[in-house]
Amino acid sequence: MISEFDLIRELVRELPKKLQGKIGIGDDAGILRFGAGPEIVFSTDAIVEDVDFRMKMNRPEWVGRKALAVNLSDMAAMGARPLAFVIALGVSPRVSLDWIKRFYRGLTPLMRRYGLECLGGDVSRSKTFFASVSMIGKCCKGKAILRSGARPGDWIGVTGRLGGSILRHQFLFTPRVDEAVYLAENFSLSSMIDISDGLAQDLEHILKSSGVFANVDATKIPVSRDAVKLSRSRYAAAFHHAVSDGEDFELLFTVPQREQDKLDRAWGKRFPAVPLSWIGRIQKGKPRIEWKRGSERIKSPLIGRAKGFAHF
Amino acid sequence: MISEFDLIRELVRELPKKLQGKIGIGDDAGILRFGAGPEIVFSTDAIVEDVDFRMKMNRPEWVGRKALAVNLSDMAAMGARPLAFVIALGVSPRVSLDWIKRFYRGLTPLMRRYGLECLGGDVSRSKTFFASVSMIGKCCKGKAILRSGARPGDWIGVTGRLGGSILRHQFLFTPRVDEAVYLAENFSLSSMIDISDGLAQDLEHILKSSGVFANVDATKIPVSRDAVKLSRSRYAAAFHHAVSDGEDFELLFTVPQREQDKLDRAWGKRFPAVPLSWIGRIQKGKPRIEWKRGSERIKSPLIGRAKGFAHF
Repeated sequence: MISEFDLIRELVRELPKKLQGKIGIGDDAGILRFGAGPEIVFSTDAIVEDVDFRMKMNRPEWVGRKALAVNLSDMAAMGARPLAFVIALGVSPRVSLDWIKRFYRGLTPLMRRYGLECLGGDVSRSKTFFASVSMIGKCCKGKAILRSGARPGDWIGVTGRLGGSILRHQFLFTPRVDEAVYLAENFSLSSMIDISDGLAQDLEHILKSSGVFANVDATKIPVSRDAVKLSRSRYAAAFHHAVSDGEDFELLFTVPQREQDKLDRAWGKRFPAVPLSWIGRIQKGKPRIEWKRGSERIKSPLIGRAKGFAHF
Repeated sequence: MISEFDLIRELVRELPKKLQGKIGIGDDAGILRFGAGPEIVFSTDAIVEDVDFRMKMNRPEWVGRKALAVNLSDMAAMGARPLAFVIALGVSPRVSLDWIKRFYRGLTPLMRRYGLECLGGDVSRSKTFFASVSMIGKCCKGKAILRSGARPGDWIGVTGRLGGSILRHQFLFTPRVDEAVYLAENFSLSSMIDISDGLAQDLEHILKSSGVFANVDATKIPVSRDAVKLSRSRYAAAFHHAVSDGEDFELLFTVPQREQDKLDRAWGKRFPAVPLSWIGRIQKGKPRIEWKRGSERIKSPLIGRAKGFAHF
């Protein structure tokens, strides 16, 4: 079912567009290029009161952290090193100066960690608090990783564990920037996305953009402790969270066979604390997922339930 | 008097900052550079319901136009050619799909005029409508024009006519991009800003950043028809509007004597419909404005009235 908000999201594509080389919209960030330099990615994401957080939580540091982290995750998804950002705030008179100071303090750890510059700010009055961050990054090896490059035979990999982000992870996750830079610099990924709508839905984004089909083994899906907690340890429910909850901000990507082999051996040494799971393979065919349990074919685990995470 | 919002505006400067070459905050846009390429400017500005416009106006095209135009004016202020933007919208369920379509339609004329790309969009639900645009531009002759370069002896120039923007100009102005590019490519400007807070206040921004003093001849201030209309033709009131109203989005800049001469002769041929006024000179001294009427020194025309335009 297409909601009115989906329609609104599509409207931006009707704007006039002169395509000069590799300039485009539609992935996690837009791409532009200056002369012979590397591809530059440009993303925007806003955090809004009563949608992404509630004032009564009284966690301005978390809100600040998340405003930056969601954009960092967009950079990661494109295989780009984040460089700088600008931030526009809408602040209501109900918000105290102290709250805003704590909001800014929430930006600092991620800024230091990635050597990120804040290049400008705009503050408006607004009845609803919002923080809109726009970020620029430089593509590793000069080239962005798109959603559209998955090819038959590729392996489908996913970092971390999935589901249950609503408990805390949606605010406190560390965007997979280091992992993405490592992947982009050392392996030939054919496609990548960050999981913001839920594994099933984001994998479908890759399948649609690439025009391919996927076989996914449900037993290989990495289920997070929070998903288990939320489901009071009922397996089917935990699995459902892992496949359909949004805001995991893990990396979902595809690699050709030869690279999968190399990557599988190298990953554990480089990121011992971050699991890497191979959940399936890309095949020729219509863009949809076929689910298996081991070698047995199963119905979509999502049948009869909401598919993926709706931002609204 | 410093408002709480001024304090909030200052907070962004307390973020960690590693200065690498010409990367910085504080002018109309931040500056960054990729390798040996030209300086790139990066701006952000948001338009917010009930602050920048009211829904009951029912002019979504104006709102869209303005969201883009204020960022284009930031680009112009830095002497940069605008290239691309991203847009984050906060949309309440009260806003119809038709309203949003008309909002987007408002972006189109300025996009076509400047060959501007939209590289991405984000749509959130929000009780208050907002549109936050972030823009990237390439500096003419590779170098941004800052607020800080005004030197004693320089002339102070201003484009267009000032005051009364509240009538319609604040929505329907054409940002001075063509004029700024012409100025930046053909003349050595020492500083530039766009008038968003009002002439007096924005000139003070230049004086403070440059550490210089200014002599301004009140009789040379170009007063707009709207300022006259708003004041029912009372001269003092119209003048007051011209000096202190915000959102003129005209260019205010300084040039050395030799350039002023050349520019004064060339301007009228290039931009016959846009007046260029020489309103005063930069001098050595504390950063403040001394007002004159012809050669007679006068008190600040702003005494006893609000100084400039407060965004809040």
